[in-house]
Amino acid sequence: MSKGLPRREDDYSAWYNELVKKADLAENSAVRGCMVIKPYGYSIWEKIQGTLDKMFKDTGHSNAYFPLFIPKSYLSREANHVEGFAKECAVVTHYRLKASEDGKGVIVDPDAKLEEELIVRPTSETVIWNTYKNWIQSYRDLPILINQWANVVRWEMRTRFFLRTTEFLWQEGHTAHETKAEAIEETLKILNVYATFAEEFMAMPVLKGVKTESERFAGAIDTFCIEALMQDGKALQAGTSHFLGQNFAKAFDVKFATKDGGLDLVWGTSWGVSTRLIGGLIMAHSDDNGLVLPPKLAPIQVVIIPIVKDKSQYEIIDEKLSPIIKKMKDRGISVHYDNRDTQKPGWKFAEYELKGVPLRMAVGPRDLDNNTVEIARRDTLTKETFSMDNIDEVVEKLLVEIQNSIYQKAIKYREEHTTEVQTYDEFKEVLNSKGGFVKAHWDGTPETEDKIKQETKATIRCVLLDEKEEVGTCIYSGKPSSKKVVFAKAY
Amino acid sequence: MSKGLPRREDDYSAWYNELVKKADLAENSAVRGCMVIKPYGYSIWEKIQGTLDKMFKDTGHSNAYFPLFIPKSYLSREANHVEGFAKECAVVTHYRLKASEDGKGVIVDPDAKLEEELIVRPTSETVIWNTYKNWIQSYRDLPILINQWANVVRWEMRTRFFLRTTEFLWQEGHTAHETKAEAIEETLKILNVYATFAEEFMAMPVLKGVKTESERFAGAIDTFCIEALMQDGKALQAGTSHFLGQNFAKAFDVKFATKDGGLDLVWGTSWGVSTRLIGGLIMAHSDDNGLVLPPKLAPIQVVIIPIVKDKSQYEIIDEKLSPIIKKMKDRGISVHYDNRDTQKPGWKFAEYELKGVPLRMAVGPRDLDNNTVEIARRDTLTKETFSMDNIDEVVEKLLVEIQNSIYQKAIKYREEHTTEVQTYDEFKEVLNSKGGFVKAHWDGTPETEDKIKQETKATIRCVLLDEKEEVGTCIYSGKPSSKKVVFAKAY
Repeated sequence: MSKGLPRREDDYSAWYNELVKKADLAENSAVRGCMVIKPYGYSIWEKIQGTLDKMFKDTGHSNAYFPLFIPKSYLSREANHVEGFAKECAVVTHYRLKASEDGKGVIVDPDAKLEEELIVRPTSETVIWNTYKNWIQSYRDLPILINQWANVVRWEMRTRFFLRTTEFLWQEGHTAHETKAEAIEETLKILNVYATFAEEFMAMPVLKGVKTESERFAGAIDTFCIEALMQDGKALQAGTSHFLGQNFAKAFDVKFATKDGGLDLVWGTSWGVSTRLIGGLIMAHSDDNGLVLPPKLAPIQVVIIPIVKDKSQYEIIDEKLSPIIKKMKDRGISVHYDNRDTQKPGWKFAEYELKGVPLRMAVGPRDLDNNTVEIARRDTLTKETFSMDNIDEVVEKLLVEIQNSIYQKAIKYREEHTTEVQTYDEFKEVLNSKGGFVKAHWDGTPETEDKIKQETKATIRCVLLDEKEEVGTCIYSGKPSSKKVVFAKAY
Repeated sequence: MSKGLPRREDDYSAWYNELVKKADLAENSAVRGCMVIKPYGYSIWEKIQGTLDKMFKDTGHSNAYFPLFIPKSYLSREANHVEGFAKECAVVTHYRLKASEDGKGVIVDPDAKLEEELIVRPTSETVIWNTYKNWIQSYRDLPILINQWANVVRWEMRTRFFLRTTEFLWQEGHTAHETKAEAIEETLKILNVYATFAEEFMAMPVLKGVKTESERFAGAIDTFCIEALMQDGKALQAGTSHFLGQNFAKAFDVKFATKDGGLDLVWGTSWGVSTRLIGGLIMAHSDDNGLVLPPKLAPIQVVIIPIVKDKSQYEIIDEKLSPIIKKMKDRGISVHYDNRDTQKPGWKFAEYELKGVPLRMAVGPRDLDNNTVEIARRDTLTKETFSMDNIDEVVEKLLVEIQNSIYQKAIKYREEHTTEVQTYDEFKEVLNSKGGFVKAHWDGTPETEDKIKQETKATIRCVLLDEKEEVGTCIYSGKPSSKKVVFAKAY
């Protein structure tokens, strides 16, 4: 069934945009670059939030909330930080409207101009470190391990649903530590939380690495990242964890009395993932029929569709299914029983296929006679008939199987689309033919990185954390290199 | 123990402000009127959110997310709405900063002026109804039952922690219906959800009523509310549910094909509660020693404090308590075992008292010998010794008892501070002596309401939903009145 979706191989970008809209995930709003996240899309975000929030709490973090607005002068305190964000800031300059003279609307009241303009947070390091200054006096006040779920705004010229929007939802962790080693440990701990979440819940394999200087977060010493591969061979940065060194402590004068009686600057980290993950989730698994959601993040894991000849049969089916539904719910399975009589079964089949529900259970009159159900898997599009006895157990097993199966499929895709190359010609050839991750030697200079980017649109996604040292020569400059790095075209 | 808190009877307002800061709930930020919600304060909000979110979902609502920014022209579409909010809007006029010429900071880039200014949402009716226009064609698309958890901004001149801040967190429900009756039913359903939440979870009795015209939400036909009474005799509007009639449908041209083939404007509701609830929670129950939290919303329900003579005893106590802690957790009780050796028991006692933890369990060497624990109740400040056997059951019962007990105390306070009066002299006398809710006849005119407000600072909180019709005369004008209304000084 086509659903009117473009096919991925014809126009991947159009396929993505149409899928987001047709599956009721999001739509554009009247404000350029800002989207409306619709209930179905938001319910996926709630699943992501719930899972990550628990992981953060299990690793000792607490949530808090800091102001949406940042005084303009704060942003300037850290030189790299302001350079990175100044060009995409929404600025509040006034705090009142008044009726226009023609009486037909409102205008900005010129008498209500702010003394100092406020920036709608693009990220909260500055406002948070300004607060931490008052919270930290001594080593006894450390570490501080705080996370915030919030909206942020970065004025983007070219936007795309979930992947790049002017306003987006995210979490931002901001931690403060006594020592450099502890801060680095925290940075890597969170990187591992992100990788675990991506792989075990999103079923999306990721590379763990460190960014080059030019791709680093504005104000960080080192940016660690997880990088995933989408089905069009492009990479997606799915999460970042920054070791900030003492940069923000310096900018906001955050010092602490050390154990041995000295005074030292505090060490910091920050880390975040956003609604961008939903874009990754869509692009990693979905097909030309619609979404394919991993069971662990699917708002509906099993949909049950009764097939009746006339309405009177609903009652019999309802009664028969009621204990089965209960048994599944008792196992923690999210079941949706769609017995609306306003839509036909065929319409429902197409709808839930489009929405990526992992399992569809159809029950018709013959099933009632035979004590069976027909189960269709969204990932493989295969159907099989099962006995109703112990169907809850079967469903539970199938959900585990699907979660694992789409993960293995994504790993296989990544393996097939990861290529090591020795020459620049080979590099360009691979990028243009099959895309994906391309590992190559690089001389370590921003100049070479930039030239490769300009000539091929490929960027260095990261240097893998477990990359081996080896003697090599840069594919571009021929200069010596000690490690391969991972290139890709990216979102 | 004084904690350095002002006493309520000396300076209620100072007591409240100091309590918010000392109990680590919130603090002021560098941006005027915006607060930082600290982890402990935020964890109370998480409890509130979690409970309400479930109640909304159980009544058929889904969450979604709409943009932070509203085009200025949208706000003008509904005449009353813009009049109500224009004076307190944060306005975004530019989307970029650039380096200042002296190189010492950043300035707003004059070349990056927006064609149309954007308002930071003070509430989202306009942006949401503009979206609903595209979602609703036919009666089959109705009802729409959506809620959003979000931050909003209303530029306030005089702010107070939680009760009135420029930015605050809230939920806003926005529903669309086929008929007037359905919309009114929804408005009242949510009012009852709010009342149930306030009474069963916050242990805070509320009046349910309808606002007078002058206190109505800007753009609503009717505003229903829950009103609580604080310990200083002032009222707090704790939640509102608005019947919008067809006002926003009219403003945004949202029509639907009716069942009988006609075309009609959609009926709407909106409703919200905010971080203001935390202010209510504090002021309803807390005392001169600090917070008193109802067990159902307390982030920590039981704190266990070991009392040892030397550090070697920790191990023995840890071992003894570990199965008890497990048993309590298995019952869903939130237990915090504070075995830090950096703070003394006395310090810990004071700390958790200040933070309103409902039960404190102290375990010393003698308790180990006797197989006992000492339990102190935060609400009554009483102590009692119990056997360790079945202590989980005892704790569970005590938590229920405390929840009920502080609720009964608040009901009693409200009963003692609700007075029916017949004359304006009596009215003023009651307001000045004991405060609280004052029920009196009113002639139904905004003029009288306004004069009473100017002369006494008391406002009409609501007309009770279950108020009886009776013949009477207005305490101010002497004109006829058919119902008593509820007055109070309010936050």
